[in-house]
Amino acid sequence: MRGRMRRDLPPGEPEQSSYSLGSPIVGYGVARVVDSRHSDFKKGDLVWGRTIGWEEYSLITTTEYLCKINHTDDIPLSYYTGILGMPGITAYFCFFNIGSPKEGDRVYVSSALGAIGQLVGQFAKLIGCYVVGSAGSKEKVELLKTKFGFDDAFNYKEEHDLDAALKRYFPEGIDIYFENVGGKMLDAVLLNMRHHGRIALCGMISQYNLEQPESVQNLIALLYKQIRMEGFGVTEYYDQYSKFFDFVLPYIKEGKIVYVEDIAEGLETGNIALKESICFAAGNGTVRVHFWSDIWVENQSLRSLFPRLLSLSSKKDGWIADMGDLELTMEERTSY
Amino acid sequence: MRGRMRRDLPPGEPEQSSYSLGSPIVGYGVARVVDSRHSDFKKGDLVWGRTIGWEEYSLITTTEYLCKINHTDDIPLSYYTGILGMPGITAYFCFFNIGSPKEGDRVYVSSALGAIGQLVGQFAKLIGCYVVGSAGSKEKVELLKTKFGFDDAFNYKEEHDLDAALKRYFPEGIDIYFENVGGKMLDAVLLNMRHHGRIALCGMISQYNLEQPESVQNLIALLYKQIRMEGFGVTEYYDQYSKFFDFVLPYIKEGKIVYVEDIAEGLETGNIALKESICFAAGNGTVRVHFWSDIWVENQSLRSLFPRLLSLSSKKDGWIADMGDLELTMEERTSY
Repeated sequence: MRGRMRRDLPPGEPEQSSYSLGSPIVGYGVARVVDSRHSDFKKGDLVWGRTIGWEEYSLITTTEYLCKINHTDDIPLSYYTGILGMPGITAYFCFFNIGSPKEGDRVYVSSALGAIGQLVGQFAKLIGCYVVGSAGSKEKVELLKTKFGFDDAFNYKEEHDLDAALKRYFPEGIDIYFENVGGKMLDAVLLNMRHHGRIALCGMISQYNLEQPESVQNLIALLYKQIRMEGFGVTEYYDQYSKFFDFVLPYIKEGKIVYVEDIAEGLETGNIALKESICFAAGNGTVRVHFWSDIWVENQSLRSLFPRLLSLSSKKDGWIADMGDLELTMEERTSY
Repeated sequence: MRGRMRRDLPPGEPEQSSYSLGSPIVGYGVARVVDSRHSDFKKGDLVWGRTIGWEEYSLITTTEYLCKINHTDDIPLSYYTGILGMPGITAYFCFFNIGSPKEGDRVYVSSALGAIGQLVGQFAKLIGCYVVGSAGSKEKVELLKTKFGFDDAFNYKEEHDLDAALKRYFPEGIDIYFENVGGKMLDAVLLNMRHHGRIALCGMISQYNLEQPESVQNLIALLYKQIRMEGFGVTEYYDQYSKFFDFVLPYIKEGKIVYVEDIAEGLETGNIALKESICFAAGNGTVRVHFWSDIWVENQSLRSLFPRLLSLSSKKDGWIADMGDLELTMEERTSY
């Protein structure tokens, strides 16, 4: 969602365009179909995917990014907004397809306690990699080492010299960098990559709020060390969802992969939750989604009793330029 | 060779280390075996490859980067230092393996009149790409368009705004950037890449002489547009030489691929030629190479009548830090 709060998105399909003022936020959610004339979806189906609005009932006009849920009681529905949803599929395909990991690889994950990073670290451990993560507080670092099984972790805010820190944790260099940060962190990592290393470019959180992007100086390492660096886009992996699902579900059921969620209850708490960068997850609300003009889906991801809509607005010249400029408001909306 | 005239090369195999003062320059050459006890090579064999010194007779201790030549009269031996040698194999595998071209792709080649660039442009045309190259003079630009069949070309020195120039030549964006330059050029290209574009990173000529590498600001494009960028190293492709050779030879014989060479005659002209960045190619000299302790190869790439050795030295604190600091001298050498 953060990526869509910018005006400088590259041209792309409408789903990837920036948010419009006054329209409900659109994101990933879990929903239930309340009406449908689409042959693949029928009343009562549970789905997760993109284009589900932060609203009680939504009309969905494309099913391209919608996956059906075969719900079982031992898996919380909220997982389909996280480990079994977009963050999970992103972690899996970005790490395995771009990172091309193998046993013994040395893996560094930045922003490692994020919804994606925490999974990447666990995936890497499952196949026998050495994994170090970085995060922004002592508490997060402890969680990485204790709850998520990272071999080591450090607080990047305490490191004045990121290059030196990486050399301490990776004296023989890094095979795979799972990139969530960009800027100075990427520059330091480039100095520490191994020959034929891979940089799986999943995000650049340090750059999104900058008017001018931070510069990177050490790109020549890509040449000297024949490194591959590639940006990841999740939308083209939805058709491989079952591959990911079949891989991850047994590990979840066996408790070999853990996942933590921050849950804010109720649509009306969404603005605060989003501002605090809390992940949204399960609720019992009734958000209705209509797709291909005749399909109605009841969204389970947000709880609200009334057909109110959460809208996003900005104080700055009609655009959402910065998280600090966000104004989230509840609006009455009676028709589509 | 230019890459080895630096002190800050990453640790690697001995062949990739920086040049040592007082030792003959080692590079790519064409040679003839004058003595051998290695089962794969016999007296009289013609070979091309790395580790052949700029000297009359050389001792070669590894055959890893040596390829045999099946010489025919219609192909000049000098071609094995160019189109049929390292530049050729680099152009081919870097473009096809990293660039992953397909018919209709829009290809941009920087430093396009270089030994590699001129081939990449022609390979791209052969499979139906639209190809634009850049070079540093009006004459070079004309050659690209007339002799090498590029769809278009421009003189980057005349462009104050590289981004605007690229938008002029690629209004719909670039699918493949064959990168020989780095720095500002790369930054401008990043703004003009298409979704799922590929950047085949072959060289960064603008960066080699800088004390501090130039910074790049637009890397986030890799993320937004899911671009793959990868550094190329030729050494791991020698075992696929026949694949390249079988592809390119018919085109050369049919005149569908052209190649130009700058030839300096004689080992004793090498220092001037190298300083002027002139490609070295065929001569009739007798440079002898000995590998695996018992194999002697007569090098055909340089002409010299005496067992003199060309050595490289630097004015700056024992290292070759900069082309401007190069001092090439001829030295007597009587034993190995």
